[in-house]
Order: sequence, then structure tokens, then C-alpha cells
Amino acid sequence: MPRRVHKAWAGRMAEPTHHLVESFTTSFPFDRRLYAHDIEGSIAHCEMLAKQRIIARRDATRIVTALRQIRTELDRGRFQAVPGDEDIHMAIERRLIEKIGPVGGKLHTARSRNDQVALDLRLFLRAETRAIIGQIRELRRAFAGVAKRHADVRMPGYTHLQPAQPVLFAHHLLAYAEMLGRDHDRFTDCLTRIDVLPLGSGALAGTTFPIDRADVARRLGFSAVSANSMDAVSDRDFAAEFLSAAALLGMHLSRFAEDLILWSSQEFRFIELPDAFATGSSIMPQKKNPDVAELIRGKTGRLYGNLLSLLTTLKGLPMTYNRDLQEDKEPVFDSVDTVKASLAILQALLPALRINRERMQTASTAGYTLATELADYLSAKGVPFRDAHGVVGEIVRHCIATQRGLEDLSYTELRRFSPHFARDVRRWLSADAAVRRRRAVGGTAPENIRRQLRRYDA
Amino acid sequence: MPRRVHKAWAGRMAEPTHHLVESFTTSFPFDRRLYAHDIEGSIAHCEMLAKQRIIARRDATRIVTALRQIRTELDRGRFQAVPGDEDIHMAIERRLIEKIGPVGGKLHTARSRNDQVALDLRLFLRAETRAIIGQIRELRRAFAGVAKRHADVRMPGYTHLQPAQPVLFAHHLLAYAEMLGRDHDRFTDCLTRIDVLPLGSGALAGTTFPIDRADVARRLGFSAVSANSMDAVSDRDFAAEFLSAAALLGMHLSRFAEDLILWSSQEFRFIELPDAFATGSSIMPQKKNPDVAELIRGKTGRLYGNLLSLLTTLKGLPMTYNRDLQEDKEPVFDSVDTVKASLAILQALLPALRINRERMQTASTAGYTLATELADYLSAKGVPFRDAHGVVGEIVRHCIATQRGLEDLSYTELRRFSPHFARDVRRWLSADAAVRRRRAVGGTAPENIRRQLRRYDA
Amino acid sequence: MPRRVHKAWAGRMAEPTHHLVESFTTSFPFDRRLYAHDIEGSIAHCEMLAKQRIIARRDATRIVTALRQIRTELDRGRFQAVPGDEDIHMAIERRLIEKIGPVGGKLHTARSRNDQVALDLRLFLRAETRAIIGQIRELRRAFAGVAKRHADVRMPGYTHLQPAQPVLFAHHLLAYAEMLGRDHDRFTDCLTRIDVLPLGSGALAGTTFPIDRADVARRLGFSAVSANSMDAVSDRDFAAEFLSAAALLGMHLSRFAEDLILWSSQEFRFIELPDAFATGSSIMPQKKNPDVAELIRGKTGRLYGNLLSLLTTLKGLPMTYNRDLQEDKEPVFDSVDTVKASLAILQALLPALRINRERMQTASTAGYTLATELADYLSAKGVPFRDAHGVVGEIVRHCIATQRGLEDLSYTELRRFSPHFARDVRRWLSADAAVRRRRAVGGTAPENIRRQLRRYDA
Amino acid sequence: MPRRVHKAWAGRMAEPTHHLVESFTTSFPFDRRLYAHDIEGSIAHCEMLAKQRIIARRDATRIVTALRQIRTELDRGRFQAVPGDEDIHMAIERRLIEKIGPVGGKLHTARSRNDQVALDLRLFLRAETRAIIGQIRELRRAFAGVAKRHADVRMPGYTHLQPAQPVLFAHHLLAYAEMLGRDHDRFTDCLTRIDVLPLGSGALAGTTFPIDRADVARRLGFSAVSANSMDAVSDRDFAAEFLSAAALLGMHLSRFAEDLILWSSQEFRFIELPDAFATGSSIMPQKKNPDVAELIRGKTGRLYGNLLSLLTTLKGLPMTYNRDLQEDKEPVFDSVDTVKASLAILQALLPALRINRERMQTASTAGYTLATELADYLSAKGVPFRDAHGVVGEIVRHCIATQRGLEDLSYTELRRFSPHFARDVRRWLSADAAVRRRRAVGGTAPENIRRQLRRYDA
Repeated sequence: MPRRVHKAWAGRMAEPTHHLVESFTTSFPFDRRLYAHDIEGSIAHCEMLAKQRIIARRDATRIVTALRQIRTELDRGRFQAVPGDEDIHMAIERRLIEKIGPVGGKLHTARSRNDQVALDLRLFLRAETRAIIGQIRELRRAFAGVAKRHADVRMPGYTHLQPAQPVLFAHHLLAYAEMLGRDHDRFTDCLTRIDVLPLGSGALAGTTFPIDRADVARRLGFSAVSANSMDAVSDRDFAAEFLSAAALLGMHLSRFAEDLILWSSQEFRFIELPDAFATGSSIMPQKKNPDVAELIRGKTGRLYGNLLSLLTTLKGLPMTYNRDLQEDKEPVFDSVDTVKASLAILQALLPALRINRERMQTASTAGYTLATELADYLSAKGVPFRDAHGVVGEIVRHCIATQRGLEDLSYTELRRFSPHFARDVRRWLSADAAVRRRRAVGGTAPENIRRQLRRYDA
Repeated sequence: MPRRVHKAWAGRMAEPTHHLVESFTTSFPFDRRLYAHDIEGSIAHCEMLAKQRIIARRDATRIVTALRQIRTELDRGRFQAVPGDEDIHMAIERRLIEKIGPVGGKLHTARSRNDQVALDLRLFLRAETRAIIGQIRELRRAFAGVAKRHADVRMPGYTHLQPAQPVLFAHHLLAYAEMLGRDHDRFTDCLTRIDVLPLGSGALAGTTFPIDRADVARRLGFSAVSANSMDAVSDRDFAAEFLSAAALLGMHLSRFAEDLILWSSQEFRFIELPDAFATGSSIMPQKKNPDVAELIRGKTGRLYGNLLSLLTTLKGLPMTYNRDLQEDKEPVFDSVDTVKASLAILQALLPALRINRERMQTASTAGYTLATELADYLSAKGVPFRDAHGVVGEIVRHCIATQRGLEDLSYTELRRFSPHFARDVRRWLSADAAVRRRRAVGGTAPENIRRQLRRYDA
Repeated sequence: MPRRVHKAWAGRMAEPTHHLVESFTTSFPFDRRLYAHDIEGSIAHCEMLAKQRIIARRDATRIVTALRQIRTELDRGRFQAVPGDEDIHMAIERRLIEKIGPVGGKLHTARSRNDQVALDLRLFLRAETRAIIGQIRELRRAFAGVAKRHADVRMPGYTHLQPAQPVLFAHHLLAYAEMLGRDHDRFTDCLTRIDVLPLGSGALAGTTFPIDRADVARRLGFSAVSANSMDAVSDRDFAAEFLSAAALLGMHLSRFAEDLILWSSQEFRFIELPDAFATGSSIMPQKKNPDVAELIRGKTGRLYGNLLSLLTTLKGLPMTYNRDLQEDKEPVFDSVDTVKASLAILQALLPALRINRERMQTASTAGYTLATELADYLSAKGVPFRDAHGVVGEIVRHCIATQRGLEDLSYTELRRFSPHFARDVRRWLSADAAVRRRRAVGGTAPENIRRQLRRYDA
Repeated sequence: MPRRVHKAWAGRMAEPTHHLVESFTTSFPFDRRLYAHDIEGSIAHCEMLAKQRIIARRDATRIVTALRQIRTELDRGRFQAVPGDEDIHMAIERRLIEKIGPVGGKLHTARSRNDQVALDLRLFLRAETRAIIGQIRELRRAFAGVAKRHADVRMPGYTHLQPAQPVLFAHHLLAYAEMLGRDHDRFTDCLTRIDVLPLGSGALAGTTFPIDRADVARRLGFSAVSANSMDAVSDRDFAAEFLSAAALLGMHLSRFAEDLILWSSQEFRFIELPDAFATGSSIMPQKKNPDVAELIRGKTGRLYGNLLSLLTTLKGLPMTYNRDLQEDKEPVFDSVDTVKASLAILQALLPALRINRERMQTASTAGYTLATELADYLSAKGVPFRDAHGVVGEIVRHCIATQRGLEDLSYTELRRFSPHFARDVRRWLSADAAVRRRRAVGGTAPENIRRQLRRYDA
């Protein structure tokens, strides 16, 4: 049976810690995930201590060697936790001293858990943010790929979930690529604020040892060194900002999920999910459900919840480090995992979507989506847009009452509503023309889509 | 190596499920926690099916026996999960069929996972809510216990964190007992809405089998049976309401935590945390930190986050069951665990608090906390309260300027500020008198405290 | 020009308040809404003071008369605010003293703004909660009314927004009535915690005057009197609980809004919104948008936001009153207004909905919604449900591949999939039969609907 | 009496709008705040239309002139709203047509309210974000100013609200300047995403008119033009990101508010609030309350609430514009106002703070804040840090038991705990030395503070 660990701070206390306190305060069950970053940071710290002759080179070598062995133990699941391991930092230090004796205690010279834990979370989040940025880039490309493959398919564009105007399916997809582009930029901006070295801030006031923080930053690849130690040990902005970027990304994915759910409904039937990406029912044999999209939509909840969770924790904390900050890790881990899994599955799903192009094309003119063409036509003939709008509103009402489409109206019939209609009006009344005409930057015309697509080629 | 499980709904699909979909959609890693409730529900369902002759008694007996064995396997950690186990429900059914063959497939007659999962979560939350209600009752008693033991200690009452008026320490503690009383009632109200049987609602529309839902309710101890199947399979109100009650409870605990942190500060020194409930620093040897209180305060974040998470997930979902609902469980589990751990540790901590009564008593009159007594005195002499307030304000300014206490002013000096002061005024100027005089219901007078305390005796 | 008001607490200060502080701290622009409740509370307080001989009856009469006049001024928009009016309480007191001189200052005897503001918010919320409970009852009746009028209409029931099983339209509507029933109960439970008199708690410690709190409670119709003054002045649970109940109600309405939006889409066409409840587009003449439903769905955001706003504000506050609490009012006001407006408009909209019954009925069997009937059929013939499910899954795949409906399969064809099919199977394959068969409590059978409807008759 | 306005889309509808719908859907009461931006955008749009010969120059001139008059009417509060004005856009267009007749209807050519409202919000938020960035810069300077003025004052640095190590007061203040620096950068990053022209996206699909979007961008000073019309009309990322930056800023201010509240407490007494920035009590004449700080802390609630409100609203919306988006404005307005008011009042308050330097200095060594010096001393003598920490922990316990300070221990006494203590140890035991020794980048040494301060000189 593993012996109970001796607390780093036991000297100060007359009583042992209450068992409930141990289980209540331990972060080991979740922060062990940071072990590789913790050891990476410790090695850099230790090398710097030796370089600065704060500890002997010989001691440093023993420490670094042992830390590498501990990493291997952890990699291979052979690390033996001990009751009383408060967190991953103390667990590793405890193991270090087990392996090489009291000299292991020199590792903690000139640092505190306060700056150490801030370092570990930054190292973790820097790596994960870079991975997420890569995934976003891939997913944008996946959207562009589908858009390219179906570049000529028209569908109804919606506002208020009502058919509005015909658009290209590719245009609709690229709207999501735009959103992802902003996500990309937000995570990138966040990364510059993650990528700052806090180590060397000590408990809160800096350290009395002649450390070289720039050296540690170099070893760990940080672009900057924190300027104020009191801020550095209590700053979790980078985590909150990450959670906010993740919440916005999740919101975008929830919107696309909603579209997928609608499109694969019996009523829309614009797409069919491949069987490999659908799930069934335990009771209804006919079911083929868009569970993946529903879960992506549902997981927005946890992304928002994680953001609020950390913001709440940070509210009103006095300077500097307070133990409340231990609550920073789980929401971050959960949002990282959620975002990565959602991006990965969408990237796999997108190319596999089956597009029902006939259905989309047919739907693109249902619901009088060409009415705006008529109004624009009149307006181009000099009728003030407001009046043109009114005229076409009446035409639509007439069509609904007589159950006809706009395309079914003859030139003579149209003239009854306005003398400004000429014979060329019929040329305006096609979805193809409607799409082609929207040539101004950002519009749904094919040439615009081609221009947008070019941005994703690289 | 365990074979891959055959999906319940595989008949409908032409392709196997994508491996990313399996890992993305599985809930087994977290909903396995519900296994005991799942089996309890299945047994009740099965017994009813037999009673109604929907399945043969002999089949039912075999199923129930096997379910009990599976529960034992799960209890003992000997249950072997299989890749492809989507959730705890299908994992148990899969194991059931492994054990007794196709007859195991009869268990799912007349039910769906949609009503089954709703049942499991209700069973779980009913048990946990009852446990939490019990813990709240205990914690109230713990507050009352400390209050009773220090029934005569005075302290400064604060508003705006400024000394306001002397109060009894017991009065301050019992304010928390009041808050907990409301928490108790809220969880109790919530319990009536948890305690409703959803099973028998089928996938969404009810079932074609002649089931007896009242019988199942009786077996499982439910007070009511859901009235509308479409509502029943998609209702998560009870979970959201639970999370809201947990958030409010957490808010109360965060307020008490804040008081503990303030009181154990070097500047207040009203209490000392026992060493068993404090933690130290990895770098500063003198530190004795109120980590428990800080974590309780910090964990408010996750309680709020969990509430928002579920609310977000539920927003805008169309009828009826949508897979988004799978996201209901983790926030509920987390809030249950958080609330229970916080209540337990406070209950252990409270009786162990060391009260610095001298320091509290001394502080109780610092900061001119008796000023209101003077204003009340004048008001009792017929001076309109507003004018009395103004007079005393000037007295306080005079005292501050001359660095004296209100008690230090002579009768003659007081008369300089108002002719309504008579010699009896000095009797008003003591913390003890100030406390005793507040006799109206709810006031801090000892007799009120005794009355309040009596409510916690039982 | 109105003169600048003299602060109640000016005696204590040597400098006048900074103008930015005045505008930053004033609550008058929003809490003036509480004026009627403030005056109602003041009158009750004043009558009690006279009864208890704390102030002279003659003074009380003058005060009460003047307060009634001030209420009239406020009712008629003739109340003249003055720069420096901190809040509605001080504005009214200022006006009172303007009208009747220093005797007006006696009103504030034995009370503080801390208990006064708690009282006002409780009076306000008690009235509004009662109104909302009434509106919920009305809206439930409106749902029941539509359900009754279309009691025989079938529609597809959905899970995952995929057609699942046929249900009665009335059944779907009554699911919302169930949700509203829980909202009703939650607001009612909340009401018992709102309906508690805090007045008499003074600033925090109670009062030295011999007040009669039970008498004030009686005059104001409160069911209970707060038991602990420190709790009473800082308790905002009732407001947070109200906001939580409002958030859940809003969530329900957002779900119904989503259904309305889907149903009125071009693709579903289950309902048509009356023109009086739809809006158009500034540019697309054909548009008829479900803006009302969209706004109801969108307003969920503010209901959640208001809840989290107050919860955040309350987190970690030390005892007792802190000025942070001033932030309680605006979220409450906003949620009250939002909830009332949403309930009112839905109540008006519901009876005006045009139901497209043919479309609903046709859709009710599209998407193989009768597949469960086949599985249940086989299960009733003794095939284990799991196997029956598999067989029908294959039948559905066959139908999809050959583009036929389940109803189109001959008895012989069915036999090819399972020897358990007998000639009576065809009787199972109708939406009407599917609905009628779901007779267990909560199922969609007409007799259940009738039973549910009876609950809304009163 | 003003006549009821004729809806822009009335042609499509057979019935007038229900009065409840009008009040429920109108945004005029709050979006009228955007009027100047709306008119600015309309003028740019109109000029472009003329330049492109989409409308006649003569018409454009009349429109622009009338728009300027309308702006003046609005500036002067002389604009007459009319029942039925749906929003500020239609109200202005209605007035335009009143003034110049049907030609006014030409303004809406080639645009939709969907791109117009997105434009207005961006123009508004661009201006406000710039203003806020300026305020942040000012507030940082105010922090630096106070830090400079009290550059030599030491105080206890805290972790866990327990005295940890002596720090310079300036160091503590500059930690907030660091936070504000990140806020500055976040708002600046957000600004690049706000500063994008959406106009020209039409309702969702672009426009058929030969518009010149780059020209409009130039006129309105936008740095970029949106690339996808469907995205552009439904993108509210910029607003959500703004709300997130505001929430983080509010969190920082809440932390400083907490420090102010603590410091001005009777127990800390590190600062005194000037009377001009404090408020009193209606009942307790001695009170001087830090209401400003409390309100800043409390307002974090609304900043978080506003963020979550918008995020909730956006969750799960299908493409493209949905009326839910109307809910974007009020949270944005509220957060803008809250942030600006909080920044302004802190900037006024900071220079007026009275610093109690004696009290701070004395406190800086209370609570054994020099214990780390001893541990560092031993560590520098070659004792592994962990062992050094243990030794000093015991020294502290000894001191507490004998009620002495660390400075009171003689060299001989120290030697009893470790043979590594030499006579030079006494030089380590002063707050001044402790501060001076922390010279590594970010540490609290005076030279670091000077370096930090230099960054705010400009």
C-alpha cells in the first residue's frame, strides 16, 4: 500500500489535514492531464537554475533525468499516485524526491505553485489552441470542398425560415466558412495573450533568486514574459478569452447543425445523411436520426456554461492568487475536448453528405422567391422602391388566392398591376437569372462564389 | 478481445457507424453512473409486463434474475464494456441477451430509450435530492449548534462591509440557517416535480401494449404518473429546476465562504481555522490558507455554469425528444457532487471553528456602531428621525476629527449638539444595550436568538 | 429650476457628492416604477407607528394624507424629480417633507432603506407573480381550446425532427399545457417565498422601537414575517427564484415558438399565421414572417441573461446589505415585462392560428411512421422486441429502395420478412389505428386527450 | 393626433397588424438611439446610388437634404414618432416620405433592413469601442499616476487574502494596469472585426443593382467589406465579442472594487475614500460606504448577463436573418453604458483616494510575511528548498506559540532550528530588503516598478 504523502507545508500545521479537506481540495484527478506540460516547464526551469548557478549543474542533471523518467512513467500509465497527492505538481515533486532524495527538493527553488500552475495551463492551452486553429482551417477547407463540388446548385435562401430569394448552395456553405474565418482570427488573437511566460513570478511578488526569465521563455518558446508578478499569478484572462472564443465557435456550429437537422428532415429533404453518420431508434425501426448534428447543437450548452463558470469564479476576487482559481481547469479541458471533437466530426461528415440537388432546385422558386426580382425590375424602371414593393405584394396575394406561381403570370396579367411592366420582365423571372444578377461583392452570383472559393485553395 | 456490439437499430442502416460518430455520440462513459437506477427501473417494468401478460412470467423471471446478476457485476466492477456500447441502457440489454439469449430482447417491449432515460435520471435525482435535503438539515443544525455555543458573543454587524451596528454572532450565523431553510424548501418543491413516472410514454406517443403505469409507479415509489407522453419524453424541467436550486444554494455557501475568508484574515481575526481545515503554501512557510472556503466560493462558478449549460441546451428545441437532451446528465452529476461535497465539508468545519470572542466584542463598537442608538434616542424624544440623523452625523464627524469614541463624549458635550440629550443617554451607549433593545421579531436581541434557535432543536 | 436635494446622510460628510457619483449610484430612473408599492408600504408602516404610539396619531394622519397626494402626483405624471434624488424612497420622503415640513421626517422612524427596498420589491413581485400565474392559466386554457377544436386531427409526431409515430395534434398542444402547468406550480411555490414581510428588520439588526411587525404584515397582506433581520435585508432569493421560473417558462415558450416557426415554413405548411400576427419584409414583397414566434424564441436570451445577471451579482457577497443589491431591480423588471408580453401575445395568437389539417394528416404517415406498429405487431405475436425491430428495419430499407410505403406491401411480401405476419397485419397499418391503440395513461389515444382536456375545463 | 403609419410591407397582408403584435415587435423605443448612425449610413448609401446612376442625382440631393433635416429634428427632440413606427429605420423613411413624397422611397433601393440594421449596429459599436479604448488608456494612466505618487509605499501582498510577502503598493496598482492593457488589446482586436461594411448584402443574397460597396465603405470609413452576404446579414459575432470583452473588463473592475472595499474597511484601513466618492446611510449616521465600488462589483452581473443573453439568442439559429436578432441591441447598449460609466468614475476616483501609508507599511510585515525570506536564505545556503520550507514552518509555529515576530528572534534562537543560519540572516529580515531583492523581471523591486511606469508615460 502506498504510504501517505507528506505535505510540502506540513511544518506549519499542528494537526494533519482532515480527510474531507483532502478530497475536497485535491485537483490531482483532473490536473494530472497537465503532466507533460508540468515536466516540460520544470525541465526548462531547472536548466535555467543551473545556468544561473542557483543550483549545481550536477544536481540539475539528476533532476532532469529523473523528470524524464517520471514522464515516461506517466506516459505509460505506470505512475503510482499516493493518497495526499494534492495536485500533479506535488505528485511529480513527491516522486522526484522518492527517486533522487532531498536534492529533488531543489527544483522548487525560485518558483511557487502559483506561477507553476499558471505556466502549465498556458502551455496546455497554447498547444490546444494551435491544434484548434489547425482544425478550423481544415473545416473551412471542407466547407469549400463541398461548395466547389456543388457549385451550380441553387436552393432557396431563407430569412425567418421563410423562402426569401434563390441562392447558390455554395454561397450558403461559404457563409459558414466566413464564420470559421472569424473564429480562426479570434483564437489567433487569443493565442498572443496565452503565449506569455508567467514562471518567475513566484508566489506573487517575484523571487529573490537571480533567475533569467528570458532564458526560460526561450526554452519554452514563449513570445513574451509577464511584466507584473501579482498580475501574472492571478491572471486567467487567457482562459476566459479562450472559453469565449470556444463559445462563439460552438454557436456557429450550432447554427450549421440546425441547418443540417432541417435539411435532413422529411419536409425539407435537401440532404441525406450517410448511414455511417446517422443513428437509429431503439423502438422505431424506420428512424434515421441526425444525432451528430443534434449533439453539436446541444453541446453549445456546455461551451456557454464553461465560459460562465470561469467568469463567475473570477468575479470579485481580491488580489492575487486565491484558491478559487483551481476551478479554472475543468471548464477549459471540457471546452477544448468539446470543440476538438465537434470540429473533427464535422470535417469527416461534410464530404460524406448526400445532396438532393433536384429537391433544392425545385424549392428555390417555391414560396414566390422571385418576388424581389419583380420589385427590383419596377424600381429599375424608375418606380420608387417602396411603391414597387407594394405593387408586387399585391401580385403575390393574387397568386396565392389563385394558386399560381409568379412565373405563371402572363405579361398582360402583370400589366394589370403596373403599367411599368414590359415584355422583358419574363427574363427576370428565373432563379438562375436571380442568382446571376447578384454580382456586387458578397452577392450570390457564381463569379462571387468562385472568388470566395479561391481563398480556400491553398 | 470483446466483440463489437451489434446496434439495436442496425437493421435500418446499410453502412456501419463511423468510428468518430461512435465516440462522439456515446454516453456510456458518464451515464454508466445510472446503472443501479436503470436496472431498478427495468425490473419494475418487467414485473409489470408479466403481471399484464404482455410477456410470459417465465421469461420475466429469467430476465429479472439476469438483471440482478448484471447489477452485481456492475457493483463489483466486473462488468465488461464493449466498444459500441452506446449508453448504459444498451450496454445492460446487450449483456442481458448475452446471458439469456433472445428472450432478453423482450425486456424492451412497450418502452423506448426515450422514456427509459427520463426514468433513470428521475430516479437518480430523486435519491440525490433527498440526500441533499438531509444534508441541508444537518448543516442548519450545525449553524445552530455554533450559534448556541457562542450565544452571548457580540460582533459588529456590517453593511457595505462597514461596521454598522452591534449584533450577536449567533444572529449572524442564523441568517445562514434561514437561507438554508429556503434552500430546503426549494429542493423539496423541486422533489415533487422530480417524483413523476415517465416510463410508459414510449418513444413519444405512448405504447400499444396494455401496460399498467400505476403499477410501475407503485413498484418504484413514484407519487405521480406523467399525463402526456410527448411532454414526458422531452421534459427536463426537473433537472433545470434542480440545477437552479443548486445554484442558489451555492450562492448562499459562497456568501458564507466570503465571511469565513474575511474573518480568518489577518485584519479581521474573528476566527481561526483549525489546522485540519487549512492548507499551506509550497513556498511561503507561514501560510495558513482558507482554501476550503475559497473553493466553495469558486465552485459557485460551476453551479451557475451547469444551470446555464442545461438551459442553453433546452432553448428552442422542437418537440419531442432530441439528442441534445443527452447533454442533461453531466451538469446534473457535477452539481450533485459539488453541492454534496460542499455541504459535507462545511458541516465538518463549522463545529471546529475557533472563535476569537475578545476580538469580536472589541470590534463590535469600533467604527461608531452605536451612532444609531443616539439617533434613535433623539427620535424617541420627539425629534423627527431625519433631524436626529443629521445631528448624530455631526457628532460622528466631531469624534473622528478629535479621535474619540462616542462613548468618550460627556453629557455636556452631547448637549452642544442637541438640547434633547438628557443624562440617561449614556445608558444607551453600550453594545450590550444596543443588542438587547432590538427586540422586535427578527431583531438581534438575545430573546429572539433563543426563539430562532428553538426551531433547530428537533 | 428645482433645487438640489439635501442628502439624508449629508451630516456625516465634509464634501458634497461628486456629480459622477450621483449619476452612477442613482436608481431613481428605474426604481421609480416601485412608487405605488413604496407608498403602500409607507402608509402601513406609518399606521403601525401611530398604533404603537411611536409617533403621534396626528403626525401619522398628516403623513398618510400627504403620501396619498404624492401617489396621485406620481400617477398623473406630475411628480417633479429633483437632481440628487437618489432613489424613489428618498424622492418620496423629500417630497413629503416639502409638503408637510420636518414632521415628514418621522416616517423613517424604525425603518431603514435596507428593509424598505426589500419590502417594495417583494410587494411588486408578489403582484406581478400573481398576474403571471393568472396569465399562465389563461394560456393553458388557450392551448386546450385549440386542442379541443381540432381534437380529431392527426399529425406526425417527431423525435430528432424526424417523423416518428402519428399523434393527435391535440396531444402535441397539450404537451405545452403540461409544461405551463409546471410553470404555474413553480411560480406558485416561489410566491410563498416572496410573500414574507421584511420591514422591521431595520438596517440589519432590527430596531429599538417597539414596532408591531405582525400588524404591518396584516395591513399589507403578507402571510409571514421574516425571522432574522440580517438575512431579511440581504435576501434576494425570491427575486432569483422568480427569474429562474421565468427562464424556464421562457424556455418552454421558445420551444413552442420553434414549433410555430417550423410549422409555418414553406416545407411543413402545417399552419398558417393570420396576417394580423405576421410581418413582412422591407424588400421581399412575398414575405410573411413569423416574427412574433422568432422574438419569443429570441427573448429567451434576456430571460436567461437576467437570471445569470442577478446570480452573478449575489455571488460571494459578505453579510449583510451591500450596494451591489441595487442591481436586483432591472433584471426583475425586464423579465416581468418579457414574460407578461410573451404570454399575452401567445394567448391572442393561439385561437387565430389556421390549421392545415389535410397537410398534417397526409404527413402523419409519411416517413414510415407506422413502422413501430409492425414491430409491435410481431412482438405481440411472441417475437422478442429486439428481433421484431430488426425485421422491420429491413422492411423499411426495402421500401425505401423500391420507393413504396409500408401500406403498399402485400401480405405475401411481408411474409417474406417474417413468418409471424398474419392477414390481420393490414389492420395495424393505419395512422388512425396507431393513434387509437396508444391507450395507456399519457398516450395519444383520443380517450386520453379527452381526459387531459377535462382538466382545463374549469 | 398622428396618423398611423402605413407598413412598408402592407401590400402583402389582408388584415392590419394586431395591436399586441405592434407593441411586441417594435424596436423603436430602443433602436432610436441609433438614429445618427442610421442617417449617416443612409446618406452614404444614397450618394453611392447617385454616383452609380441607380437613382438620379437630383433625387439623391433631395433625399440627403431631407435626411439631414430629420437628423436635426432627432437631435433636438422634435422628431414626432407615430404609432406603428416599427423601428428607427422605418420611422426615418416614413418621415422622409412625409417630407419629400414618393421619391423618398428610392432610398431603399438596393438595400434591405437586414443589411441596414447590421450597418447601424456596427457604426454604433465602432464609435463606442473607440471611445472605450480611449477610456481604458486614460484609466491605465490614472493607475500609473497613483502608483508613481506613492512609489515607495510598501504593503502586504496577499494570496488567499492572507498576508504573503511585502510588495510595493505601486506594484499592486500596476497589476490592474496590466489587466487593462489586455482589455485594451481585446477591444482593439474586436474593433477589426466590427469595422467591416455589411451594407450591400441586401436581404440575404446581395442585390441586383450595380452598387459600389467599396465606395460606401470609403465614405463610412470602413476598413473592409463583408465577403458573403448570407453571413453578413446574420453575423452578430462582433457584438458578442464586444460583450465578452466588456465582461472581462468588468471582471477586472470587480476585482479592483473588491480591493477598494476591503482596503476601506474598518479592519484594513489602507485607504480612505474621499467624502465626495462615498455615500451614507438613511439610518446609521456614522456610515461612509464604498457604494461606488460595490456598484462596480455588482454591475459585473449585468455585463455577464448581457453576454449570455446574446449568446443564448444566437444559439441554434438557422440561416440567415431571423427576427431573434433584434434582441442584439439592448444588451449591447447596456454593456456600453455600464462599461463607460464604470471607467469614467474610476478615473475620477483614483486620484482622489487617500492612502494610509503608515498603516500599509506596518501591515506589510504582520502575519510573518518575511518567512519566505528565511526559506530563501537557507536555500541560498544549499539547503534544498523543500527542507528549508519545513524548517521555517516550524520557526513560524514557534513564534505564534510565543507570540513573537520573526524579527524578534535572535541569531542563537534561529540556529536552534538550523545550523545553516549565519549572522547575516538578520539583514534579510526587513520588508524593505524583501522588496528590493525581488529584482527579476516582473518582481516587486523598485527598479521594476520604475520600468513598468515608464510604459505609461506617453
